[in-house]
Amino acid sequence: MPDLRIADVRITPIAFTDPPLLNNAGCHQPFALRSIIEVETEDGVIGLGESYGTKALIDAVVALAPSLRGLPVTDLNGLLARARAQDMGGITGYFGVQALLPRVVSAIEVAMWDALGKALNMRVCDLLGGQVRARVPFSAYLFYKFAGHAGQDADDWGEVLTPEQLVGEAQRLVDSYGFEAIKLKAGILEPEAEIAGLEALRAAFPKAPLRIDPNGGWTVETALKLLPRLTGLVEYLEDPTKGIEGNARVQAATDIPLATNMYVVADEHLPANMAQGAFRVILSDHHYWGGLKASRDLARICEIWGLGLSMHSNSHMGISLAAMTHLAAATPNLTYDCDTHYPWQVDEVIEGGKLKIEGGSLAVPEGPGLGVTLDRAQLARLHRNYLDCGYTRRDDETEMQKHQPGWSFARPRY
Amino acid sequence: MPDLRIADVRITPIAFTDPPLLNNAGCHQPFALRSIIEVETEDGVIGLGESYGTKALIDAVVALAPSLRGLPVTDLNGLLARARAQDMGGITGYFGVQALLPRVVSAIEVAMWDALGKALNMRVCDLLGGQVRARVPFSAYLFYKFAGHAGQDADDWGEVLTPEQLVGEAQRLVDSYGFEAIKLKAGILEPEAEIAGLEALRAAFPKAPLRIDPNGGWTVETALKLLPRLTGLVEYLEDPTKGIEGNARVQAATDIPLATNMYVVADEHLPANMAQGAFRVILSDHHYWGGLKASRDLARICEIWGLGLSMHSNSHMGISLAAMTHLAAATPNLTYDCDTHYPWQVDEVIEGGKLKIEGGSLAVPEGPGLGVTLDRAQLARLHRNYLDCGYTRRDDETEMQKHQPGWSFARPRY
Ligand SMILES: [Mg+2]
Ligand SMILES: [Mg+2]
Repeated sequence: MPDLRIADVRITPIAFTDPPLLNNAGCHQPFALRSIIEVETEDGVIGLGESYGTKALIDAVVALAPSLRGLPVTDLNGLLARARAQDMGGITGYFGVQALLPRVVSAIEVAMWDALGKALNMRVCDLLGGQVRARVPFSAYLFYKFAGHAGQDADDWGEVLTPEQLVGEAQRLVDSYGFEAIKLKAGILEPEAEIAGLEALRAAFPKAPLRIDPNGGWTVETALKLLPRLTGLVEYLEDPTKGIEGNARVQAATDIPLATNMYVVADEHLPANMAQGAFRVILSDHHYWGGLKASRDLARICEIWGLGLSMHSNSHMGISLAAMTHLAAATPNLTYDCDTHYPWQVDEVIEGGKLKIEGGSLAVPEGPGLGVTLDRAQLARLHRNYLDCGYTRRDDETEMQKHQPGWSFARPRY
Repeated sequence: MPDLRIADVRITPIAFTDPPLLNNAGCHQPFALRSIIEVETEDGVIGLGESYGTKALIDAVVALAPSLRGLPVTDLNGLLARARAQDMGGITGYFGVQALLPRVVSAIEVAMWDALGKALNMRVCDLLGGQVRARVPFSAYLFYKFAGHAGQDADDWGEVLTPEQLVGEAQRLVDSYGFEAIKLKAGILEPEAEIAGLEALRAAFPKAPLRIDPNGGWTVETALKLLPRLTGLVEYLEDPTKGIEGNARVQAATDIPLATNMYVVADEHLPANMAQGAFRVILSDHHYWGGLKASRDLARICEIWGLGLSMHSNSHMGISLAAMTHLAAATPNLTYDCDTHYPWQVDEVIEGGKLKIEGGSLAVPEGPGLGVTLDRAQLARLHRNYLDCGYTRRDDETEMQKHQPGWSFARPRY
């Protein structure tokens, strides 16, 4: 029996290049921040995790790390208790204290699962209750975008602001990865223009399940007015407007399932969502739901209450993708193809380079744990990026203002 | 890495002596039925489970067993899929088909956890997410009872039908096991007589948390009328009346939490309970909720919705008690002392004889898996009991008629 006690927890912030993708909070910065977590056991087995790169998360993991020494990597209850006992009140930033806790727990928990799997020579999907699918399907994640970052040359995706450009972007993603479902990040242009984009996608990809995500950018009235245009066009409508109450009004008016990764994002939102009947699809995300175990719990809740389930993603590297894939592979009631930003990233921090999405899906990585290992040269390079870029948190609004002086965040905008 | 694939699944029905305990469905028979499940891996590791002894359950496990060969003991998703694919339509009896499925899954699942723990030299509570308490508290489970079985001599508990006899029974249980909380199985005598019993218990045990369980035996009107008598007297009121809707009416009229092991007993009852606000405490039972993993899921749901959580029990042996104890030890939000019939049983099927409840609680058994092993001589003896007693299912009503000819089951009765 290996010694499963934690000897050390390390976190390394990294930054990797990111295109000028648009959302209703602004524009992606030239570098996306992320953090790589290593949980090392007394036997020297290293489990990997990946999480947000915002300073608040990093500070919280660093603060918590000493109290985790000696904890067995199986002891998820112990992790949660120690995280709750840790004073994170002084750590401010992108997240409030309440939202920080499950993110900190998740960052470490995934690495604990990976360490356990590597120590026992078992895959994480098997530890999570058993593999139900060989490959996990992902969707094409379309963004409107500028041609290049402010003051920089155009990237090789070029500008995407018109329906024609959108179809071109979709075609490249579908050709490269075989995606079947297509998601449009919206809430940026006038709603009519975005729906024209969706209709162009429908014409170009007659069989593709389509989704649109205005990120709460529409008023209830706008959303209600657009429902006839969206009916029969999209498989679900993601966060059309703000809040559980607002979306409940929209859901009451349509058979299109409403999906969310914005307003049902923590345990405490579930009772209100069920009581008000707001969202019929939860886009889970182990990074903020508290880890793989908590995400599996969420999946069971969706199954019991008859909600659909898929996955949300932020810009991420291969460790997160591997964790998402193991989790999805062990989740019977994954009802829609998962989202991932992965095709928009060119850097990678795992050995062997980027994982291969083919035919619209990713095979569960082989090998124990998550099935990925760290490329330390890349980690060092991406950590240097982090130090050099000077960012300590994501700030899409300020970045947007470099492109459109005077632009300001508004939700709803339309 | 040990070979964790299942080589064989066996189930052995047993019968053990049981006193003439009363409930509103009748009287316990002289023998209680149970089954012992063994899951053997390719490496010859044997995991143990314990479940109902009713023929329907045994037939279903026997029918399912061949399809489980080759399944890794980690593959809970695979177990569930195979159980769902198994035609149990022809197996009738004590449970309907829908209720049979989670019972069959649980019977095998517990043995899979035990086998996994024994193969990896890890305890089940650690595999379930980590031990949060060294000892698990249980309550004194009081029954009204006849002096002896029909046509037999009095047992050493004697008759318990009056408040004085009830206090005597409680005193013996408290003296022998150190229980703090006291539960009265009710719905048998006139409600006024049972509340007089509770009041006698309160006088004799001023600090003991009290509970009363009429098993749905009261009408809504009777329950509402009794609420003032029960307020301040009991920590919770268990299944006072029938159904989610009826109990919601009672819960709306009182601050006493209503508890249940009768009407929220499967996944599909949870949404209705939450929507109607019927029960504020769930008495979970891994034997019918689908196993240890499903019970942990239930605990999370109770935590998220702010419900209390404790455990229900039927007549059982030490394998079930060990499984309950490991589960409770790994469940942070266990809010009330667990129920157990265990003190009413004298037989035992595990090596070393009966587990020792002391100071009102049981230490988590030491050793890998559930920490218990099978006494094969006792198993053979108790299996012979099963063959000799001739019962194939529990039938409290027929047994009651041997004591009181013409008695018939009624719910509600008062
Ligand atoms: Mg979204
Ligand atoms: Mg009960």
